[in-house]
Amino acid sequence: MAEVKNKQVVLKDYVTGFLKESDLDLVENTITLKLPEGSNEILLKNLYLSCDPFMRNLMSDIGILEKFLPYAPGSGVAKVLESGHPDYKKGDLVWGFTKWEEYSLVPSSRILFKIEHTDVPLSYYTGILGMPGMTAYAGFFEVGLPKKGEKVFVSAASGAVGQLVGQFAKLTGCYVVGSAGSKDKVDLLKNKFGFDDAFNYKEEPDLDAALKRYFPEGIDIYFENVGGKTLDAVLLNMRVHGRIVVCGMISQYNRAQPEGVTNLGNLIMKRIRMQGLAVTDYYPMYHKLVEYVVPKIKEEKIVYVEDIAEGLENGPAALVGLFNGRNVGKQVLVLARE
Amino acid sequence: MAEVKNKQVVLKDYVTGFLKESDLDLVENTITLKLPEGSNEILLKNLYLSCDPFMRNLMSDIGILEKFLPYAPGSGVAKVLESGHPDYKKGDLVWGFTKWEEYSLVPSSRILFKIEHTDVPLSYYTGILGMPGMTAYAGFFEVGLPKKGEKVFVSAASGAVGQLVGQFAKLTGCYVVGSAGSKDKVDLLKNKFGFDDAFNYKEEPDLDAALKRYFPEGIDIYFENVGGKTLDAVLLNMRVHGRIVVCGMISQYNRAQPEGVTNLGNLIMKRIRMQGLAVTDYYPMYHKLVEYVVPKIKEEKIVYVEDIAEGLENGPAALVGLFNGRNVGKQVLVLARE
Repeated sequence: MAEVKNKQVVLKDYVTGFLKESDLDLVENTITLKLPEGSNEILLKNLYLSCDPFMRNLMSDIGILEKFLPYAPGSGVAKVLESGHPDYKKGDLVWGFTKWEEYSLVPSSRILFKIEHTDVPLSYYTGILGMPGMTAYAGFFEVGLPKKGEKVFVSAASGAVGQLVGQFAKLTGCYVVGSAGSKDKVDLLKNKFGFDDAFNYKEEPDLDAALKRYFPEGIDIYFENVGGKTLDAVLLNMRVHGRIVVCGMISQYNRAQPEGVTNLGNLIMKRIRMQGLAVTDYYPMYHKLVEYVVPKIKEEKIVYVEDIAEGLENGPAALVGLFNGRNVGKQVLVLARE
Repeated sequence: MAEVKNKQVVLKDYVTGFLKESDLDLVENTITLKLPEGSNEILLKNLYLSCDPFMRNLMSDIGILEKFLPYAPGSGVAKVLESGHPDYKKGDLVWGFTKWEEYSLVPSSRILFKIEHTDVPLSYYTGILGMPGMTAYAGFFEVGLPKKGEKVFVSAASGAVGQLVGQFAKLTGCYVVGSAGSKDKVDLLKNKFGFDDAFNYKEEPDLDAALKRYFPEGIDIYFENVGGKTLDAVLLNMRVHGRIVVCGMISQYNRAQPEGVTNLGNLIMKRIRMQGLAVTDYYPMYHKLVEYVVPKIKEEKIVYVEDIAEGLENGPAALVGLFNGRNVGKQVLVLARE
């Protein structure tokens, strides 16, 4: 009955304002690597943790965090060490709601999916084949209902979700432009992900004018990852019967008072559908994502860029970095490579 | 070849800020009550003109008014005096985009529908059987997709559209609460239109608290007629998978700078669909409105309250009155009763 050290990242309390590294604590506990007698839980070795903007949103005092405390709400890839549940057995690779620690004892309901395809990088199950991938797939195809030739705008376009939306849009025959916050990211969008065009929003004091330049005929689908002023400028540039897929509003999560959006009147005359998306609604169709992207990853028709941090001790910095745009691509935290 | 006087209400220019009576002019011209030789236009005697909040919206400098000037953009009920188009003949009653004048010579494309049922008040074709009726019907049923037992909130609920949405909701088996701006209107909602409850928003300094009182379990469908602060409070009280039917934003039309809406983040976690509506998209299904409401009007299962003004000279005041809530029910302007 091996008792081992178990490093953990825990959240001190609800977060207000900008997330700081000091909101999180690195602690060291011990764990016995054996299921308690009669337990139907699962003992996991965590391999890859996912750093996602939505985690900040759940850290506010909005009645959701209680389910996760003292751990930050998050997901990741893990290996089953022991299983008290018939659906899982020792050696299985899984992804789902893990805790930010090296080893976890969790109820089976925390596991979302067993990993079937291991001939792609395992870390992809925090990204293109995980929650962000499902979000991009469901958001673009199921909520956005794209048609060939339509004009698509993606904000935070080099992120975990955005880079996929852009590639899905190109595969669908759409024209797609992305915005991001640095020259390197803009280069990635144009040269690696195949966006038709891209711009650095920090160099565009007038977003409305920028959008009119890239979309002289207007936008059919806006994949919303940032909110606030960007949304307000987009509303002025939507086409009749346009769709706004509201996936995230990263520019707003750290604000005590969100920015006011003033151009919602455009929804009426342009008959715009603006629809929020929670990825959990779409997990029943996860197999469709796998069928769609796994072959395209192998044929290099879709690429996926990750930003890798190593070790739990670097987790808080990686997570905080999401909100000042430090990461380039999907932010992953590696705990163990096996 | 009878030449007669033709009183007209014309718009002086684009409107900025609050609509004033002085933005409109009453003038007197003459018109020959005979079609020009070879014309395929229609000569109309206007009977009832519709006063609608959306008219203010079209009066701003947004590239739409040009189609209407110097007339205010509006609709109404008219009688065909002469017709150069085979679809219409002398004596037909029609409704569509008329001008604010006693007699009009218009292309047939301005006429939307011939009036088939004359055993209901003709003025109803500016309301329950006209544009507002179609708006309420399409907005509630086609965009709102209501289910029995759902909780519905309607703002500007005693207006031309709102009073119908509330009654449609009750006929569908929903719980419905309306807001309006006076005690008389609240009484109408509860005692005449059969809303489950209603409140005067002017007496509710905290709209969020008011909504929590009337919807302790939250709102499934919000029928949006006002925008601004009301929308912001509603967003805090929507249920998961709720729908916001964006029909109008009367509180915003007269503002140079609309109020900022800060609670759009709720769209995401609650997976809310917020969808704008332009009634013109739904005219192909106008027959469904007629089939639904005409029997219910006759059986008194639906009532419709109008606020009647008499004579073109009283038109500007009636139109301006919409924006300070002077009207109780659908505002109609009667030019002639025949």
